[in-house]
Amino acid sequence: MRAITIPDSGGPDALVPTDVPTPAAGRGEVLIEVVAAGVNRADVMQRRGLYDPPPGASSYPGLEVSGRVAALGEGVDSFAVGDEVCALLEGGGYAEEVAVPVGQVLPKPADVDLVDAAGLPEVVCTVWSNVFMTANIQPGQWLLVHGGSSGIGTMAIQLAKAVGAHVAVTAGTAEKLDFCRDLGADILVNYRDEDFVEKLREGNHDHGADVILDNIGAKYLSRNVDALAINGRLVTIGLQGGRRAELDLGTLLAKRAAVIATTLRSRPAAEKAAIVAAVREHVWPLIEAGVVRPVIHSRHALDRAADAHREMEASTHMGKILLLTA
Amino acid sequence: MRAITIPDSGGPDALVPTDVPTPAAGRGEVLIEVVAAGVNRADVMQRRGLYDPPPGASSYPGLEVSGRVAALGEGVDSFAVGDEVCALLEGGGYAEEVAVPVGQVLPKPADVDLVDAAGLPEVVCTVWSNVFMTANIQPGQWLLVHGGSSGIGTMAIQLAKAVGAHVAVTAGTAEKLDFCRDLGADILVNYRDEDFVEKLREGNHDHGADVILDNIGAKYLSRNVDALAINGRLVTIGLQGGRRAELDLGTLLAKRAAVIATTLRSRPAAEKAAIVAAVREHVWPLIEAGVVRPVIHSRHALDRAADAHREMEASTHMGKILLLTA
Repeated sequence: MRAITIPDSGGPDALVPTDVPTPAAGRGEVLIEVVAAGVNRADVMQRRGLYDPPPGASSYPGLEVSGRVAALGEGVDSFAVGDEVCALLEGGGYAEEVAVPVGQVLPKPADVDLVDAAGLPEVVCTVWSNVFMTANIQPGQWLLVHGGSSGIGTMAIQLAKAVGAHVAVTAGTAEKLDFCRDLGADILVNYRDEDFVEKLREGNHDHGADVILDNIGAKYLSRNVDALAINGRLVTIGLQGGRRAELDLGTLLAKRAAVIATTLRSRPAAEKAAIVAAVREHVWPLIEAGVVRPVIHSRHALDRAADAHREMEASTHMGKILLLTA
Repeated sequence: MRAITIPDSGGPDALVPTDVPTPAAGRGEVLIEVVAAGVNRADVMQRRGLYDPPPGASSYPGLEVSGRVAALGEGVDSFAVGDEVCALLEGGGYAEEVAVPVGQVLPKPADVDLVDAAGLPEVVCTVWSNVFMTANIQPGQWLLVHGGSSGIGTMAIQLAKAVGAHVAVTAGTAEKLDFCRDLGADILVNYRDEDFVEKLREGNHDHGADVILDNIGAKYLSRNVDALAINGRLVTIGLQGGRRAELDLGTLLAKRAAVIATTLRSRPAAEKAAIVAAVREHVWPLIEAGVVRPVIHSRHALDRAADAHREMEASTHMGKILLLTA
């Protein structure tokens, strides 16, 4: 089969379409004939040599796919060959076929295009596990999302609004902020010329953010803590702005607040399965009801994965970038 | 009535026994005739002028008392005059009488001396709210407690062991560590000449700490993060070692871990009441069964509060220091 390999880490052209052996479905796994794969910033980090796959994971990039069940491993009876599905992966999504533990496979939601479904697993599982399961956002609370027009951002806005929370977002252009507003965001901050702490607190009577979903890390740590409400939870899921920064525990203590840093990819299969099960129970009905939808920016051929990465690194996209096998 | 006031912040002699007006039980409050008051490090900080009481709280120090119900405010019917009780306070415990919201009052546990019961509310509520409600420690997990022989430490050891968790402690003398071992601690670290990360990881097969209860803050932040297990929760409840330190979000993210800083005193009455209710449900039966006991180091007359503070600042005590009204 065809897959994207990374013989040597580097720029977008380090992604090399290659003929490789087809994987097999092991015990408890489903083999998926891939129709589309989602592109994530973690794939870019992996391509650059900055984010090795977890031990035992495929060396090909790609954390999510949609497609059809091609084969069932021993002990799997909850799907049938030919079922339209999407799946959360540890890696290996940039390929024509991929084997995945059955606990990470979801049925394609009704009324969602099979290609577009490739843009759901990573963002939905990331947002649900962090904003809902870990940070336990409640109706009426405020969520601050950095990078509101990203794949994760567009899903976080929709899911938070769907449960009755309020949403503030940061983004770098007026066009992106308009896009976030159309998805339901209440407070829009252009980080290039506005301070997100000030704008948030002006906009919500100095309440601050009950939950912050952050992909910047060190560069924003101090301001994020300033933005937190009493009992607030900062959840950092990316370190685009570095890893080390000063933390003021006194401010944190006065707010009785938490700084959590986590990642979906490194979680063991049992935790991923618990997240996927929660997503199927709580989020899939919202998608099938049309309340929440995958937001797709562009589609590229699998062999042109380098173009997809160039687009992601230009950061002009809004929503998900997908790769298509055909 | 007699109370300890702090006309000018400073050393132990800043605590001045004074005749002051007796408080009244407001709506929803219980007036307690105090038999004994617990001494906490927060009282020392308040005496030094470093920890103002929350708005609306008594200006006298003292976060916990035992005694007898002297009067009931409007709307209170869950206690009767004469009942032996102990209570968690926002302040005002260094006095012959104190008014407290009924949600913060607990019946004296059977078979516990009424004086000794003054040493329970603050440490039990602190340990239960942080180690159990916030950090959600589970049987088989590891708790690391800094200052294992302190009032909070001695209660944390006992409660964690009572639910089947394992406990590592730090303390500054062999005598204190022996005391912690007798209470059930599994790993003993003398912080004066041993590294707690190394000793913990040597002692539990490099697992680390699932939960850390920390009163040091900045000085230990980096080492505490190093000591955390995967999914670990660091709960900082004191800043004896300063408030600002570098946090490595990359290490935190790789462990999917959390840094939480919180304080009991500043919580609104409704949250205190929820904690007290949980303590009554989960901890009081353990105390009444003799599984967990108050650990009392010494008793001083209320008028000699300065001596009690000198003793606390010398840090040679193990367990609680109490003040007696008679």
